[in-house]
Amino acid sequence: MLLPEAYDPIRNAVRLGGVTLEAPEPAGQRPALAAYIDDHIEEHVAHLQRWMRQPSVSAEGLGMKDMAALLRDDLVDLGFADARLVPTDGHPGVVGSHDAGAERTVAVYIMYDVQPVEPADWSVPAFGGELVDHPLGRVLMARGAANQKGPERAFLNAVASLLAVEGSLPVNLLVVAEGEEELGSPHGQAVVDACRECLAAADAVLLPTNGQNAAGEAELILGAKGLLYLELSTAGSPAGGPTRSEIHGSYRAIVDSPVWRLVHALASLLAEDGTTIAVPGYLDAVRPPSAEERRLLGEVLAGWDEATLKTTLGVERWIGGWDRAEALERLLCSPTLNIDGIRAGYAGPGMKTILPHRATAKLDSRLVPDQTPEEAVSLIRRHLDRLGFADVAIEVLAGYPPAQTPVSSLPARAAIDVFTRHGCPPVVLPRVAGSAPYHLFTALGLPAVGAGLGHGAGAHAPDEYMVIWPAAGSGTAGSQSAGGIKGLAGVELAYADLLHALAGA
Amino acid sequence: MLLPEAYDPIRNAVRLGGVTLEAPEPAGQRPALAAYIDDHIEEHVAHLQRWMRQPSVSAEGLGMKDMAALLRDDLVDLGFADARLVPTDGHPGVVGSHDAGAERTVAVYIMYDVQPVEPADWSVPAFGGELVDHPLGRVLMARGAANQKGPERAFLNAVASLLAVEGSLPVNLLVVAEGEEELGSPHGQAVVDACRECLAAADAVLLPTNGQNAAGEAELILGAKGLLYLELSTAGSPAGGPTRSEIHGSYRAIVDSPVWRLVHALASLLAEDGTTIAVPGYLDAVRPPSAEERRLLGEVLAGWDEATLKTTLGVERWIGGWDRAEALERLLCSPTLNIDGIRAGYAGPGMKTILPHRATAKLDSRLVPDQTPEEAVSLIRRHLDRLGFADVAIEVLAGYPPAQTPVSSLPARAAIDVFTRHGCPPVVLPRVAGSAPYHLFTALGLPAVGAGLGHGAGAHAPDEYMVIWPAAGSGTAGSQSAGGIKGLAGVELAYADLLHALAGA
Repeated sequence: MLLPEAYDPIRNAVRLGGVTLEAPEPAGQRPALAAYIDDHIEEHVAHLQRWMRQPSVSAEGLGMKDMAALLRDDLVDLGFADARLVPTDGHPGVVGSHDAGAERTVAVYIMYDVQPVEPADWSVPAFGGELVDHPLGRVLMARGAANQKGPERAFLNAVASLLAVEGSLPVNLLVVAEGEEELGSPHGQAVVDACRECLAAADAVLLPTNGQNAAGEAELILGAKGLLYLELSTAGSPAGGPTRSEIHGSYRAIVDSPVWRLVHALASLLAEDGTTIAVPGYLDAVRPPSAEERRLLGEVLAGWDEATLKTTLGVERWIGGWDRAEALERLLCSPTLNIDGIRAGYAGPGMKTILPHRATAKLDSRLVPDQTPEEAVSLIRRHLDRLGFADVAIEVLAGYPPAQTPVSSLPARAAIDVFTRHGCPPVVLPRVAGSAPYHLFTALGLPAVGAGLGHGAGAHAPDEYMVIWPAAGSGTAGSQSAGGIKGLAGVELAYADLLHALAGA
Repeated sequence: MLLPEAYDPIRNAVRLGGVTLEAPEPAGQRPALAAYIDDHIEEHVAHLQRWMRQPSVSAEGLGMKDMAALLRDDLVDLGFADARLVPTDGHPGVVGSHDAGAERTVAVYIMYDVQPVEPADWSVPAFGGELVDHPLGRVLMARGAANQKGPERAFLNAVASLLAVEGSLPVNLLVVAEGEEELGSPHGQAVVDACRECLAAADAVLLPTNGQNAAGEAELILGAKGLLYLELSTAGSPAGGPTRSEIHGSYRAIVDSPVWRLVHALASLLAEDGTTIAVPGYLDAVRPPSAEERRLLGEVLAGWDEATLKTTLGVERWIGGWDRAEALERLLCSPTLNIDGIRAGYAGPGMKTILPHRATAKLDSRLVPDQTPEEAVSLIRRHLDRLGFADVAIEVLAGYPPAQTPVSSLPARAAIDVFTRHGCPPVVLPRVAGSAPYHLFTALGLPAVGAGLGHGAGAHAPDEYMVIWPAAGSGTAGSQSAGGIKGLAGVELAYADLLHALAGA
């Protein structure tokens, strides 16, 4: 938790980033809204379940059109009269606006796709939308519960509640949704372009998320690393190696091996320490953390639960035995070059003696300011060419730059204020170690934050869940209870208050 | 073909290895035997089909017990009264002897296992034993047709024919069969040990094989490279990396990667030229070709159809652009270090951003005299340890030494003689580029050769076949016809003559 010693629930203020923010009085018609949400919570849970039961696996093209239509129809039901699909060369986008006649406009980013599932690894059907008892409470266990359909539909529940109780919204809303976040947002720009005029009028962008960890500690996300996703491959060619199919392994005596070639090309990308990127110039664009980032990092570090992260990841030691300060800074401020997978030939049980005719590796590189994916891939290409690996093919599967929003921006200040009032003063992360398409909005000059209460886990893994009714001790079912993990009702109320804060801050 | 200009069918002699061998007169009751085989060829084909229809995939444990029992029963039917299974920790061996009261004893090595199949890649059921029309004639297309159940059962058909026509065999026979050749013969020694006493009395060992290529040219095999099959693997451990499962790829910023580690360890095994083995000392035990080997190599080279091999393999250029002389010598005389397969993480379509918790590579190394698998693996281990890769695990899946029999040995001279008389003077290969367990016999001081006429192809591949009735031009169906690809009848007659030659030479 960020500076817990500085949080004074009585003064209703939190000192953050060296600045003491006085939280405004509660906005909106809070008691009526809370009562409404509590009264309709079963119906709101059913909305989340409905979203979970509609598969939307972008990598496999599973249920994508149906999920896009479902989202559009939900927006229409909420009064987004112009909600529509945005056709792309991939899965469609969905956009829609709700003109409340308000002074301010808030854009909400929604990813409606999810990761693939391995059904055998799940203890419930991954697309069953089941409610399950869990040590943290009663949870919705399904693919997308945490990443991100759960918190996204919770946000729309909050919108529905505001409309029901207050008759209108405190801000104009613009929904920008894509179905390819898990693919690296290859058509995210096309979706943004489809509502560029509306976006020009926006004051802030929200990316709904479950921002609380299992201990109830909240975080606010100001940005993300960029992403470069590459496929490197080698194959037999007229210059050498088997061109048509694998051949008997004994011919290695006179036939070149595409697998060995890929192994050597890959090895050249990283120094022998196994960590330092060895591509010349790759780190040149990395700027050191700014003063504001240093301050935020220090505050994040103070409350960073390194031990829990190690347990969660199943990692006993960081690279090089780094201490927590170094590890945290590397996690948030260093670019990476990771092998996501590699495949060639036979790797099943027992023996098969073959010389494979091709080999493939998938790599992702997380980029930090001021790196760009275009420059990064060009440096890798140049490096391989220089070493004589011109035959190693590089396919760029995804690429977008890092992006970041100042802590002094409207949505950051509003979220800190509201979450603090809800008993969850957030840790402010200048960026996350992962990637998300914040750049689609920051490139337009819009401040964008990943914000929301509630807890979920299991993104990209089996038994993904979002806590709906927290168990006693990890939070309570009521929307008004302070501290601990917020249940769905608390999550929704915080979103409603956040929209009021964005209107009035 | 070996020195075709030196082959004089009239003089019935062939100059080989610098020595002119005078072929003895036809032995055995040749005309009656040929007539018997021709009369019973349908029945003999049916025996091969019966063997094909009994799957025996050692890697998958498919049909192994049934095939072992089938082989044993066939031996009993042939008068091998003591034929029996030899239990091992893996698939059983099968041994049996036939005491003809003869002066000489010949051991026959049989592998009764076959490679796995990918049914979708076959144009007929792989275990259907179907006869199919093929440009080369009517062929038996099935897994094992060429490697090795086809020629092996053809040999037993010859034995049955000798017994039927002549009432006895010219030599005592000892069958030594294993079901794990495709697994690297891990229990081959145990099977040999089960009949060590009988083997001590043997004069020669035959490994039945289809020794003719598609052009009808024959080869005689005097040995094979040794085999070392390794699995190298890395995994997260208390020293670093994810220990439990894959984690999100963004954590690469602070978490060690078992995949990168394996890539670097592998890269260290081979010089940057992608060919030279960089493990210190690995080549020290390699002895240069002997004078006899040099002479044989020269003779092989004279008739080596390099272009056809390139076409068959789908390879347009040997390593380094080597010319045919260098390529042939490397193929037969150089050790190899080959990656058969590598696997880690996700390598399917699209993106998945993970840091895999383990990685595996399979490697085979072909060993030449005087390398040993024990020394080879120990050198690799020492090399990795020295470079700090002590955490890279090495599992030895198979290992046996190279082995070779002199061209002056009894079975080599007999085979050259007989095949020459059958119109197929053989190229004599000092060894093949691949591996086979000749060492099981040569270690006992026994001369062992891979010998047989006939043509088959597709070992370890789809649509494996053995020619049963050659098309006109590639040979004829009759057992007496000279030259071209021998059909099953010709193959069997050559085996019968070979046993006579072994008795009388």
